[in-house]
Amino acid sequence: MAEGQALVKEIVPQSEDFSAWYVSVIRKADLMDYSPVRGCIVFKPDGYELWEACQAGLDRRFKETGHRNAYFPTLIPESFFQREKEHVEGFAPELPLVTEVGSEKLEERLALRPTSETIIGHMYAKWIQSYRDLPVLINQWANVFRWEKRTLPFLRTTEFLWQEGHTAHATEEEAREETMRMLEIYRDFVEADLAIPVVKGQKTPSERFAGAVDTYSIEAMMKDGKAVQAGTSHYLGTKFAEGFGIQFLDRDNQLKYVHTTSWGASTRLIGCIIMVHGDDRGLALPPRVAPTQVILIPIGPAKVREEVVGRSRELLQALRAAGLRARMDDRDEFSPGWKFSEYEMRGVPLRLELGPRDLAQGVVVAVRRDTGEKQALPQDGLVERVQTLLDEIQASMFQKALAFREAHSHRAATLADLGRVLEEKGGFVLAGWCGDDACERRVKEETKATARNIPFDPPERMERCLVCGREARHTVWFARAY
Amino acid sequence: MAEGQALVKEIVPQSEDFSAWYVSVIRKADLMDYSPVRGCIVFKPDGYELWEACQAGLDRRFKETGHRNAYFPTLIPESFFQREKEHVEGFAPELPLVTEVGSEKLEERLALRPTSETIIGHMYAKWIQSYRDLPVLINQWANVFRWEKRTLPFLRTTEFLWQEGHTAHATEEEAREETMRMLEIYRDFVEADLAIPVVKGQKTPSERFAGAVDTYSIEAMMKDGKAVQAGTSHYLGTKFAEGFGIQFLDRDNQLKYVHTTSWGASTRLIGCIIMVHGDDRGLALPPRVAPTQVILIPIGPAKVREEVVGRSRELLQALRAAGLRARMDDRDEFSPGWKFSEYEMRGVPLRLELGPRDLAQGVVVAVRRDTGEKQALPQDGLVERVQTLLDEIQASMFQKALAFREAHSHRAATLADLGRVLEEKGGFVLAGWCGDDACERRVKEETKATARNIPFDPPERMERCLVCGREARHTVWFARAY
Repeated sequence: MAEGQALVKEIVPQSEDFSAWYVSVIRKADLMDYSPVRGCIVFKPDGYELWEACQAGLDRRFKETGHRNAYFPTLIPESFFQREKEHVEGFAPELPLVTEVGSEKLEERLALRPTSETIIGHMYAKWIQSYRDLPVLINQWANVFRWEKRTLPFLRTTEFLWQEGHTAHATEEEAREETMRMLEIYRDFVEADLAIPVVKGQKTPSERFAGAVDTYSIEAMMKDGKAVQAGTSHYLGTKFAEGFGIQFLDRDNQLKYVHTTSWGASTRLIGCIIMVHGDDRGLALPPRVAPTQVILIPIGPAKVREEVVGRSRELLQALRAAGLRARMDDRDEFSPGWKFSEYEMRGVPLRLELGPRDLAQGVVVAVRRDTGEKQALPQDGLVERVQTLLDEIQASMFQKALAFREAHSHRAATLADLGRVLEEKGGFVLAGWCGDDACERRVKEETKATARNIPFDPPERMERCLVCGREARHTVWFARAY
Repeated sequence: MAEGQALVKEIVPQSEDFSAWYVSVIRKADLMDYSPVRGCIVFKPDGYELWEACQAGLDRRFKETGHRNAYFPTLIPESFFQREKEHVEGFAPELPLVTEVGSEKLEERLALRPTSETIIGHMYAKWIQSYRDLPVLINQWANVFRWEKRTLPFLRTTEFLWQEGHTAHATEEEAREETMRMLEIYRDFVEADLAIPVVKGQKTPSERFAGAVDTYSIEAMMKDGKAVQAGTSHYLGTKFAEGFGIQFLDRDNQLKYVHTTSWGASTRLIGCIIMVHGDDRGLALPPRVAPTQVILIPIGPAKVREEVVGRSRELLQALRAAGLRARMDDRDEFSPGWKFSEYEMRGVPLRLELGPRDLAQGVVVAVRRDTGEKQALPQDGLVERVQTLLDEIQASMFQKALAFREAHSHRAATLADLGRVLEEKGGFVLAGWCGDDACERRVKEETKATARNIPFDPPERMERCLVCGREARHTVWFARAY
């Protein structure tokens, strides 16, 4: 699939083949392209803008909670990965290694970071001496590398963009609070800005981050019923502190290991936006992160054109002056009909049409991308009406996604149940679990579903393990996942 | 120098040893740390914030001129570098190569990008078919890798952060206009926001970017008289278009190669800010990019403390509400004197002190970092006064740097002259040049100075080549450079 976008003529219907729909949409909307390097994609401007919106929303929240950005080297000595036993097992097979520069061999091979706990642990050991140096609250925006076997644009790529927060604390309690604070920031951002409802919960031990004591996640449901882990937050205990010697002299004059956390969200979020809100007409972008929130389209024959375009330009300026991301498309060479489908396909939340009759009546016609609903808005006070309408669209997109998730959330008492529900209906399935790895493994082997997380707030407590029938220690959301 | 900052007790005076001053300042101000990988530094929060300010100032200007951000893969097939002859000669010796993943050898070695003309050229060849696809105006914020022999924090590191713009145009004229537009954006940003005067001009052929037809630069003078290339803009002609087959069908139905440009500015700018404005007390940051513009320090004995801190907090809120980056330091454990030197060392442009007497008189004492000037400002209307004062500081820092550059700009008629001026006074030296590579090479061999650029607007036209005495084709700024 190395051809230009010109070859993507039509969007494949979701009901026909969801994966083909996804690829056709991201190609037609010009969000990405394949690169010559296996599994690496090019984030084209329309795709990258969605990431810039995610960066802005997250970065603001991180800074409001006292975090600061820094930047650590991409290249990490291979030996660093040996310092934390589980970490190396998790990441070693996927590490790209720099072994030469020009034509000279390096003395020690250097890994491209898959995540930065090791190099950051090494630096924190230098920076942290006393309880006065704590907490350390640092975030990094960076590219990372994981040589995945199967790749999918945005959702799983060899190189991807993300942020990774790394904090160090004097006590377990404080580090655990931080872990939960950041998980809540992810939930708030994804629900409020991306209009995607998520389930907050704890990962099972087998799904933990390699090297974590506890991993927490937010899980979102795509329109094919599959799950995407949209953000994770880890309490790392003193594991990395021990591996890298991050110790501090506490108030009580004792030398202690710090407790660390890490948390990350990545360009997968772009995939989530597309798979949660998109439909057979293309993308549908939530107003808060849509690069273009309002597209203004002047309509009418040549003789009234100047007047219509003139008035449209005034309205455009008023919208932009109010901080709205509005654009006008007054190109002659495309018909209004073509433009309507084009901006629907690109997911612009609100379209405003202005023709000669609207001009005479002092209105514009507003058409919502999410519902298709059409209404005439008075030109007087247009800015406020548009702002309100965008808020309504944002809220209603969230509600729609939530209703979809509710409609595709089920319960299963047994493994057979689970298999049947997944085959017949798909989605998230709540089930009891005894806590035994073997039972979790059987679920995966027989249904391809994994434990997404143990929700903090399950709709119901399940009493028996779906596999062995023993008493359930946890109530778990199972689902097939990206 | 792998020790923590606690070991950097004092700032070495500039007059004693400029390099030692530089390293002591960036360590004491906690801007960076050395990493375990040769030539790679850690950008600590106080250093990274300066980069964030540069990013904001440049990104806004790029977008205002119609550019959009995208992201291309870091890993580039080694063979791509062979496609442009000069490009491979310039970059091949410094390329870090990924040859293995986990324990498996890759079929083709992958280079870490030193710059992205090649991979972007490959993609543009897919995207550009017709004149309708032009111009393509894309910028990328990214990390790049060049295995330099000698490294210096911020100014020359193995991995650094930068932006690289890459544009494609139908005609040479349009591409050359773009090249100049971006050079002017760099000048405007560096002069207006960083308060650093620069010389705009064209690079000599030997100093051109590997693969460019023409390279232009802005050059800034550090306080030791040495030059730093603060931004470059290249007209690449059709060289990369030919190497990667970027062709378009023009309006006249002819298949033509596009004309491309590229332009970049990097984390070297952080080094420039430090070396242009810093002094023996530490950093001095221009208000427009200072992470903290105003530091408010309440002063006074315990019994009046509450009242003083209370009023300070009100003033702080007023300053912040007006969008000023203001902070208060009301910590008990540090004396006012300690705080004064601390924030001077960190380069905060303006300090506001509030004691009981000031409280009674309704004033605050304002102290400028750049001049040390002290003045009482009425608390009423403080926000406006502070805004004006910050503008004055910004303007006066630029004037001071300009005066310094003027005072350290000289002329030389002969090579002997040049050597003497550089030894005795340092700085930039204007001289005539015949255009011959051999003469330029001799300047470098004998004086260690290089041709910085051929200024568009030299203060004087020099008539004879400083080396061979033949008629000068160009008037050139020579200087030793970082």
